[in-house]
Amino acid sequence: MAKDKKLVEQITSMEEDFAQWYTDVVKKAELVDYTSVKGCMVIKPAGYAIWENIQAELDRRFKETGVENVYLPLFIPENLLRKESELVQGFAPEVAWVTQGGNEPLQERLCVRPTSETLFSDFYSNDVHSYRDLPKNYNQWCSVVRWEKTTRPFLRSREFLWQEGHTVHATAEEAQERTEMMLNVYADFCEEVLAIPVVRGQKTDKEKFAGAVATYTIESLMHDGQALQSGTSHNFGDKFARAYNIQFTDKDNTLKYAYQTSWGMTTRMIGAIIMVHGDNSGLVLPPRIAPVQVMVIPIQQKKEGVLDAAAALKDTLCRAGLRARLDDADKSPGWKFSEQEMRGIPCRIEIGPKDIEAGQAVIVRRDNREKTVVPVDQLAQRVREILEQEQQDMFERARAHRDSHTYDAHTPEEFDAVISERSGFIRAMWCGDRACEDAMKENYGVTSRCIPFAQEKIADTCICCGKRADKLVYWGRAY
Amino acid sequence: MAKDKKLVEQITSMEEDFAQWYTDVVKKAELVDYTSVKGCMVIKPAGYAIWENIQAELDRRFKETGVENVYLPLFIPENLLRKESELVQGFAPEVAWVTQGGNEPLQERLCVRPTSETLFSDFYSNDVHSYRDLPKNYNQWCSVVRWEKTTRPFLRSREFLWQEGHTVHATAEEAQERTEMMLNVYADFCEEVLAIPVVRGQKTDKEKFAGAVATYTIESLMHDGQALQSGTSHNFGDKFARAYNIQFTDKDNTLKYAYQTSWGMTTRMIGAIIMVHGDNSGLVLPPRIAPVQVMVIPIQQKKEGVLDAAAALKDTLCRAGLRARLDDADKSPGWKFSEQEMRGIPCRIEIGPKDIEAGQAVIVRRDNREKTVVPVDQLAQRVREILEQEQQDMFERARAHRDSHTYDAHTPEEFDAVISERSGFIRAMWCGDRACEDAMKENYGVTSRCIPFAQEKIADTCICCGKRADKLVYWGRAY
Repeated sequence: MAKDKKLVEQITSMEEDFAQWYTDVVKKAELVDYTSVKGCMVIKPAGYAIWENIQAELDRRFKETGVENVYLPLFIPENLLRKESELVQGFAPEVAWVTQGGNEPLQERLCVRPTSETLFSDFYSNDVHSYRDLPKNYNQWCSVVRWEKTTRPFLRSREFLWQEGHTVHATAEEAQERTEMMLNVYADFCEEVLAIPVVRGQKTDKEKFAGAVATYTIESLMHDGQALQSGTSHNFGDKFARAYNIQFTDKDNTLKYAYQTSWGMTTRMIGAIIMVHGDNSGLVLPPRIAPVQVMVIPIQQKKEGVLDAAAALKDTLCRAGLRARLDDADKSPGWKFSEQEMRGIPCRIEIGPKDIEAGQAVIVRRDNREKTVVPVDQLAQRVREILEQEQQDMFERARAHRDSHTYDAHTPEEFDAVISERSGFIRAMWCGDRACEDAMKENYGVTSRCIPFAQEKIADTCICCGKRADKLVYWGRAY
Repeated sequence: MAKDKKLVEQITSMEEDFAQWYTDVVKKAELVDYTSVKGCMVIKPAGYAIWENIQAELDRRFKETGVENVYLPLFIPENLLRKESELVQGFAPEVAWVTQGGNEPLQERLCVRPTSETLFSDFYSNDVHSYRDLPKNYNQWCSVVRWEKTTRPFLRSREFLWQEGHTVHATAEEAQERTEMMLNVYADFCEEVLAIPVVRGQKTDKEKFAGAVATYTIESLMHDGQALQSGTSHNFGDKFARAYNIQFTDKDNTLKYAYQTSWGMTTRMIGAIIMVHGDNSGLVLPPRIAPVQVMVIPIQQKKEGVLDAAAALKDTLCRAGLRARLDDADKSPGWKFSEQEMRGIPCRIEIGPKDIEAGQAVIVRRDNREKTVVPVDQLAQRVREILEQEQQDMFERARAHRDSHTYDAHTPEEFDAVISERSGFIRAMWCGDRACEDAMKENYGVTSRCIPFAQEKIADTCICCGKRADKLVYWGRAY
């Protein structure tokens, strides 16, 4: 354990104040910084490196399903935005408007893209003519702007980074298949790489994306029991195709409207990693996403041979394909342990004069601080095993937390009891009426997170109105 | 050679109209598309895949020099932009202004970043305190906006993609070293990967970046004899540090201003690839940057065994680490050859029933259409050698073109003769006076491209005013 507590003492404990703990971690782990640009953040190297790894992993998974990357403009002319009425109603209150270019006012104002359905639809209306042109499975990595009033690093900011996939298909079935496929790509990525268990399901009409026929979501649970929408996938049917005139000549030589989907995942997943895995010593990164997986920390590094031995271990680990670094700064080992823990590096190797003499090194896991003494000639192999175990354990721990914070409410009384004493997902039946969702929000501050694909009938009546209900819903407070 | 000329016939020859040829290639090779957003473009999959390869190569080279990636906001508050007067004068006429967020007018308008020196300086002023914090070698990949009046795909558009590196150092010497280092990274990348030879040099005061103490540049020559500024690296000295108050406590315990650099390369390099290597059949991509390096094209693909054999070859090539694809579309081989040539794929493999019988395949290079018949069991090795040779030959051909279009002018009469009959770089001496540069622009439409690092004294007097001159300058018309 860290002997030098300076870094640690500077962060608030999560039990005391979870929001402040979060803010402390993003600052002390040097993930972001505030800027002179209100509501926007600087993503610093330690934060951006996580995003680069998320990008690489997701991009590879997208491309395996036939997705190609493109880049569309940052700006949307107002009349283009207004062509699809639901979308514009959904986004108009929160877009930034460019009204002047150079020294002259613009004839038509441009909004800074909050999302790019309109631009992709306009592009596809020119690019799609025949069934031979379909499908187009395009994606772009970019930033988008939403003029949020209250902001928090990663979770809600006026500008954020994301990918947005936009596909166009000849049939409704194919669009539905793509919508579900991408939701599963997100779910697998979260579970396998970020060690974050998710609930897969469909959004209610109230919560779905403006203009979508159906929105699917993966929902995860943070350590404080609040939900985080972690990725969404939308089926638009032919609604945008009709608004933007995306028509193609089909095999039967008739003109048809095309079917579209979109799906996105954002930098808020870095917030999810922090809030699912972090602890009171700071960030805890799952080994598969960690930019640095192993920090080698020499003990008594001024003694002859120690730094050389530590550097040799680091080189061995790098050659074995592990992302390892050596911390040879002129600081105490305790300080370095504390830094490695704050930054969430999944394991550290301690090596000092006695270890060198014994031909061994000490591996310490970040998540549970378990120590393993290993012969140096087995180091790379053992580190790899330990990281793999840590990845699995982190997932299992997050799942156990999620499961132990998921409650079933069969009656309004039970819902009341749970919501007043616990925080987490509450599973309860819903009749399907928007009015009940509004009442749940009003009464308890909860929203329907999703109608899970894995349905169960846990009661006969709606948790809100008491009428017949056949939909199981996950309810919760959400970021 | 292509037997089916349909695609080819649709493009203008470069000898007839170079500008139209360029436009035809970017459209027919499906690199970009126009949009409803004036002055902005869509980068389509074939274009974006080139950019992804440029990114991967440059990013790796940056990181080898210790660069880390970050992300700063898209917006710059007006007062922050105005802190450095030269920069704001340089960029104010061409920025886009956001004046409204959501439904409310902004108290202070925000410009969409045309470049991020101001934001990085503001960030560094908070982030740099001690010599221990230095250097910071940060880079970001993003888009920037400049409100250009006339635009052309890749070469000049209102929004373009780039990387911008911004570093901060404790000493002037270290900043100068970094400035030159990054120029050399760009130069090596252009020559080794894009097969584009460059002239390395310094910009004159007239041509340097607004606010820079010194700007270094790499200049390349397009097929039509016009120059293209291909990458720049700026040393700001402590000018921004003084304007934005970036101070640090040095080892001697005194407070000092820091020194900064910035450097950028953009999607216009895709334009350079087109204009250096392209021909009248379309794009020609250097093998090291080509998203697809080899297209396998079956001949008489409906005959039994042909498609299987072609697919097997493609698999063999992919397993050997080559980026290979199979074109099994229901089109004639001639059409496919023509498409492969238009898209600039560096080589194709032709395989038909007779080849299968003979256990061979035909490799055809894109650049010179040289055919090589090889036994299938040697295919991967021979393709690799041929691609390597093609890469080298493309560089040598571009260098020979550049050299044969570089002219020395010792007197105004010689300059006159060259500029009226030729196009290319003109090397001539310059006295150092801004007035002479202005006159050269006025008289000949040329700008000083750079003062090359490799200086020679080819005359004693200024090409313009006839006074003593000791600087050799590359002059030219430029994109």
